[in-house]
Amino acid sequence: MNKDQLLNYVQNFVSLTDDEAMELCSSFKEVKVKKRQFIVQPNFTDRYRNFVVKGAFRAYAISDEGQEHTLQFAIENWWVSDFNSYIYQHPATLFIVALEDSVILQLEYEKEQELKASNHKFETFFRIMAEKGLAFEHRRILFNLIHSAEARYENFLLNFPNFVQRVPQYALASYLGMSTEFLSRIRNKKT
Amino acid sequence: MNKDQLLNYVQNFVSLTDDEAMELCSSFKEVKVKKRQFIVQPNFTDRYRNFVVKGAFRAYAISDEGQEHTLQFAIENWWVSDFNSYIYQHPATLFIVALEDSVILQLEYEKEQELKASNHKFETFFRIMAEKGLAFEHRRILFNLIHSAEARYENFLLNFPNFVQRVPQYALASYLGMSTEFLSRIRNKKT
Repeated sequence: MNKDQLLNYVQNFVSLTDDEAMELCSSFKEVKVKKRQFIVQPNFTDRYRNFVVKGAFRAYAISDEGQEHTLQFAIENWWVSDFNSYIYQHPATLFIVALEDSVILQLEYEKEQELKASNHKFETFFRIMAEKGLAFEHRRILFNLIHSAEARYENFLLNFPNFVQRVPQYALASYLGMSTEFLSRIRNKKT
Repeated sequence: MNKDQLLNYVQNFVSLTDDEAMELCSSFKEVKVKKRQFIVQPNFTDRYRNFVVKGAFRAYAISDEGQEHTLQFAIENWWVSDFNSYIYQHPATLFIVALEDSVILQLEYEKEQELKASNHKFETFFRIMAEKGLAFEHRRILFNLIHSAEARYENFLLNFPNFVQRVPQYALASYLGMSTEFLSRIRNKKT
């Protein structure tokens, strides 16, 4: 069932034959993750590309001063991994934790390489994923450089209304690059 | 000659036959760009992926308040474009300007699509470019979230020693997310 969700997602970008769809699906492994469970931790190499079927995740780092900084959130139909660790297969710097009881589909690094090498369409799919990701991060960096904390919060509300109720306030504040107190002030002003 | 430089770069990532190398090279067009000339401007769609053979470029946006914010620098063997504009073929939001007299190799959007569709290796190459770009931006976002302005400047010096002498101080300050005065204070402290 859950693999249909992955397949629907993938077929938005490349059109697969039944055999290809079967090959892709059989390459992923379904894993249940409990709330507060970690799927990536610093110093361990991230072995998987993770597709979120159900639930929510947060990827963050901890600074030398002990502060948490959120790089990414992921809910249904998003991918989440420590991307530097995954593509270069070196130790992770991020923690990735489930914010809710979740279900993910995991693709192992070597399996992904086989898929890409054996079939042009799979290569195309992962190229599109990386390009969309890069374009997204460019928009994000630029938006953060240009706009005030208040505008960053408004923009997040506008683009990711589904996330706001599901992520803790301190995590959202650290994603937006502001203190929890400041985010709380902005939220109170709006109500 | 300049196409050899591109080819050397590409062959770091995929190994091409002579015919494929020729096909790739003939898809790029060499363009000379004068210092202060723009290759991308807001509201015009960015039609090209640009490989820098010689020279230096800066990609930046201007906020509503008239302030410049630098998203990217590029020197020899880097790529530069308004990536959101290029991959989605919609109007650009960035200015991209030559900081020196420069030479670039331009690949037109439609030509790139043909290359990728016709040959798995070209698809692989552009997938790797996007993945490296995405991994780079993740490192950058995380570094900026976690570290002080001073550490951001040190890190830039360490990773991009070749850029520092070639980009104006106000542009570097806006790339690092600080005022020119602040960057100047950090630099003076170091000497």
